Amino acid sequence: MTTTNNPAPLTAADRVKLSVRSILRGSGQVMFQQSAWTGLFFLLGIFWGSYECHLPQVAWGALVGLVASTLAGYIIPDKEPAGYDGLWGFNGILVGCAFPTFLADTWLMWIALFVCAMFTTWVRSGLNNVMAPWKVNSFTFPFVLMTWVFLLAARELPGIAPAALSAPELTIGAVAGHLDVSFGSLVIFWLKGIAQVFLIDSWVTGVFFLVGLALCSRWAAIWAAIGSAIALGLAILFKADPESISAGMYGFSPVLTAIALGCTFYKVNIHSAIWTVIGIVATFFIQAGMNALMLPWGIPTLTGPFCVATWLFLLPAYKLDDRDLPDHSFWGKLFK
Amino acid sequence: MTTTNNPAPLTAADRVKLSVRSILRGSGQVMFQQSAWTGLFFLLGIFWGSYECHLPQVAWGALVGLVASTLAGYIIPDKEPAGYDGLWGFNGILVGCAFPTFLADTWLMWIALFVCAMFTTWVRSGLNNVMAPWKVNSFTFPFVLMTWVFLLAARELPGIAPAALSAPELTIGAVAGHLDVSFGSLVIFWLKGIAQVFLIDSWVTGVFFLVGLALCSRWAAIWAAIGSAIALGLAILFKADPESISAGMYGFSPVLTAIALGCTFYKVNIHSAIWTVIGIVATFFIQAGMNALMLPWGIPTLTGPFCVATWLFLLPAYKLDDRDLPDHSFWGKLFK
Amino acid sequence: MTTTNNPAPLTAADRVKLSVRSILRGSGQVMFQQSAWTGLFFLLGIFWGSYECHLPQVAWGALVGLVASTLAGYIIPDKEPAGYDGLWGFNGILVGCAFPTFLADTWLMWIALFVCAMFTTWVRSGLNNVMAPWKVNSFTFPFVLMTWVFLLAARELPGIAPAALSAPELTIGAVAGHLDVSFGSLVIFWLKGIAQVFLIDSWVTGVFFLVGLALCSRWAAIWAAIGSAIALGLAILFKADPESISAGMYGFSPVLTAIALGCTFYKVNIHSAIWTVIGIVATFFIQAGMNALMLPWGIPTLTGPFCVATWLFLLPAYKLDDRDLPDHSFWGKLFK
Repeated sequence: MTTTNNPAPLTAADRVKLSVRSILRGSGQVMFQQSAWTGLFFLLGIFWGSYECHLPQVAWGALVGLVASTLAGYIIPDKEPAGYDGLWGFNGILVGCAFPTFLADTWLMWIALFVCAMFTTWVRSGLNNVMAPWKVNSFTFPFVLMTWVFLLAARELPGIAPAALSAPELTIGAVAGHLDVSFGSLVIFWLKGIAQVFLIDSWVTGVFFLVGLALCSRWAAIWAAIGSAIALGLAILFKADPESISAGMYGFSPVLTAIALGCTFYKVNIHSAIWTVIGIVATFFIQAGMNALMLPWGIPTLTGPFCVATWLFLLPAYKLDDRDLPDHSFWGKLFK
Repeated sequence: MTTTNNPAPLTAADRVKLSVRSILRGSGQVMFQQSAWTGLFFLLGIFWGSYECHLPQVAWGALVGLVASTLAGYIIPDKEPAGYDGLWGFNGILVGCAFPTFLADTWLMWIALFVCAMFTTWVRSGLNNVMAPWKVNSFTFPFVLMTWVFLLAARELPGIAPAALSAPELTIGAVAGHLDVSFGSLVIFWLKGIAQVFLIDSWVTGVFFLVGLALCSRWAAIWAAIGSAIALGLAILFKADPESISAGMYGFSPVLTAIALGCTFYKVNIHSAIWTVIGIVATFFIQAGMNALMLPWGIPTLTGPFCVATWLFLLPAYKLDDRDLPDHSFWGKLFK
Repeated sequence: MTTTNNPAPLTAADRVKLSVRSILRGSGQVMFQQSAWTGLFFLLGIFWGSYECHLPQVAWGALVGLVASTLAGYIIPDKEPAGYDGLWGFNGILVGCAFPTFLADTWLMWIALFVCAMFTTWVRSGLNNVMAPWKVNSFTFPFVLMTWVFLLAARELPGIAPAALSAPELTIGAVAGHLDVSFGSLVIFWLKGIAQVFLIDSWVTGVFFLVGLALCSRWAAIWAAIGSAIALGLAILFKADPESISAGMYGFSPVLTAIALGCTFYKVNIHSAIWTVIGIVATFFIQAGMNALMLPWGIPTLTGPFCVATWLFLLPAYKLDDRDLPDHSFWGKLFK
């Protein structure tokens, strides 16, 4: 019997190399970059930030989640060989960041983390099937959905007790403190907005992420920077809670929307740039609205606002190609 | 270069006329009437009612929302030229009624209103793409969804603070007062049920709306009247909160379901009439259920119950054509 | 005129027989068994359990709901003659169990029960149309959705006041008591997990259900038993509330997921068995999560966790056929 699909048998070294690449790409795909180097920089940023915040278990959780969800894809392979591009790992790494951030560090939590990370790979396959007719995909929603399930379950199951979840409440308490709007502080809030994509509260991590993005795509880094900046400006203008602003909590979803719309699902041009800016504004309000929505359970929105906003802005399937740009357009010339 | 699609160039006067017609039809389309005259009567009713209730900003908000959402359609045109039928404006006018009703009258609120109204046009395009395979559309849900987002966001963003939202709570307090069931009062509650489609608490506005409907479709006016009446009867029978009943809060969603099922998506006949009455009953219970659902956030259902009920009753795609009516049927003869 | 579709006219006795069979199959289809005998055993179990619990109205409610929803299918017939297989009745019988369990026994409640049971048949038709492209169906979700609507509405409508709903709350109170983990108690909890599929708190009813299942499919009985057992083990491991565990509240959804995945939508083999066990684990966590989700309204999850889990595990459409099993596989040989 000849295996025409596999012309040359893979050596053990090949397999290890492929697996490591799949895993690292899984890290990079959180921000839509199919690059092992980008993924490595993201992991470095996670390790730096989690040790800086005295939460080393977050970094190790990220690794475990990344491996578990990639493994799940190897066990039950999908029709499309998505995993080699890192599409098995990006939900799992986020599960791995979220569980040790919000739940107590017990062995049952680690089992739940492993199981939940595996679930995301299979759930992603199902949700992508659902969304295929409209040419959108599930983004990080498998992570969001399954992590919500487990964080809610943590309220009912003392075996995986919450460690750092807000108390469920109906109204946000009086907001203490004042926002420092010096230039240096704003830069820190802006970088934390990018770091919070992986739930890390460290501006250094934000720098790692920007560098990692730039390694694979200059535009991705630029749009990430723009997304966090616009969201920061809107949060200050609409007088959001200073504590959330200074931790970068308004930044992470707009960062993802910006990369998704600005240079991943649309080509870079002036039309798509305007559309992306509008999408960033929408993501900001959806983030604020979902913050209020989650209050009665005291669980975080995770990257849900990014998913909702990006679906809403991709579903109309507007054509924003370069061809739409008149040659004599000032903006068109500037950007071409 | 010849522009074969536009055989005769439009004059400036033509363009103004077309734009005004698009805008007025946007008002009429809230109740499925593609008529500028109906839209004008709706606007008159809104102006009358909002001045009567000492909330003139609601009427001006309606106009701003109508123009903003129609403008959004002109800026990023869809494949189908839906806007000329008023399909760009009907979500925006509702956003424009809702924002000044629930939020404080600040300049940031007006910016949010404008932005949210524009969003509805694009969100509608996306949601209609999603629903197209089942031959239903998004109705007023883009308004409902985006207004929910902004009303929730208002809890987090003091820049757009709530002015008239209920406090979030888990149980409705003891209901004070007694329902006046004299004939005159019932007529007022019934008319207010129709007026509340645009969030107006005035029976005179209800009369304006009925007249506006009758100008375009006698059956639409009849079904609006039936929808509000059945819902009023059920609310009394099942002992709903007197305050809600007397403000018409149980009427507006059944009114929309009645027009949608009774004479818009089905032809008028005895089979569709029975189906519509069942749909009105379902809308009443869905309205009550969604009232309870929204309690923890203190935000209104808006026309969500109408959307849910009408989707549920259109999705089975039952054939209720005239051909199904046996010729010897008493009811068939009466209505033919 | 010849009616070629009906070669021989049905006698009155035939019609009665067909109707009774449709109704009894409706009972059996709750656990995916198209068998009137299974349905009869389920009804016997319901009658036994509801009389044992001094809630006879639950048994009579089950009958009324079963008849009402089957009737709804006869009144507005669907394209597919699904009703003769019992597919009209299984949502209605669950509505009929739920209403008298949670709501006060008034004549308005019985009207609401009848109406809601009829709605489920039509809602099922619509939801199945929505889900058809992905080859999944709505399972018991029409029951779940419409019962949620009416239980929520009961908070607003004193005409259908709650009798045995939990108070809405944000956090679960201190859990009193200690779980008895003697073998005899565990068997009782395990059987109650099966009985709770129809909301019955009686281990004898669980025996009736297992026997009823075995009459139609030995594998269905085995998977029901496995589903309840795994969920019970996980609930103890993760330290769930003893009161819920001992009433079988963690068992009913995994039981349904087990039958659905293990021997209904997949053929019995070792691959599908592993997939089913994973699905049971997922259902357990989704059950715990949805318990927390419903807290602010004090309404039960019903069989929602089963629906969500089974959709998530069918949507990837993984091929788990016998052909996938290598002939030399130990497990493959064992099960073939």
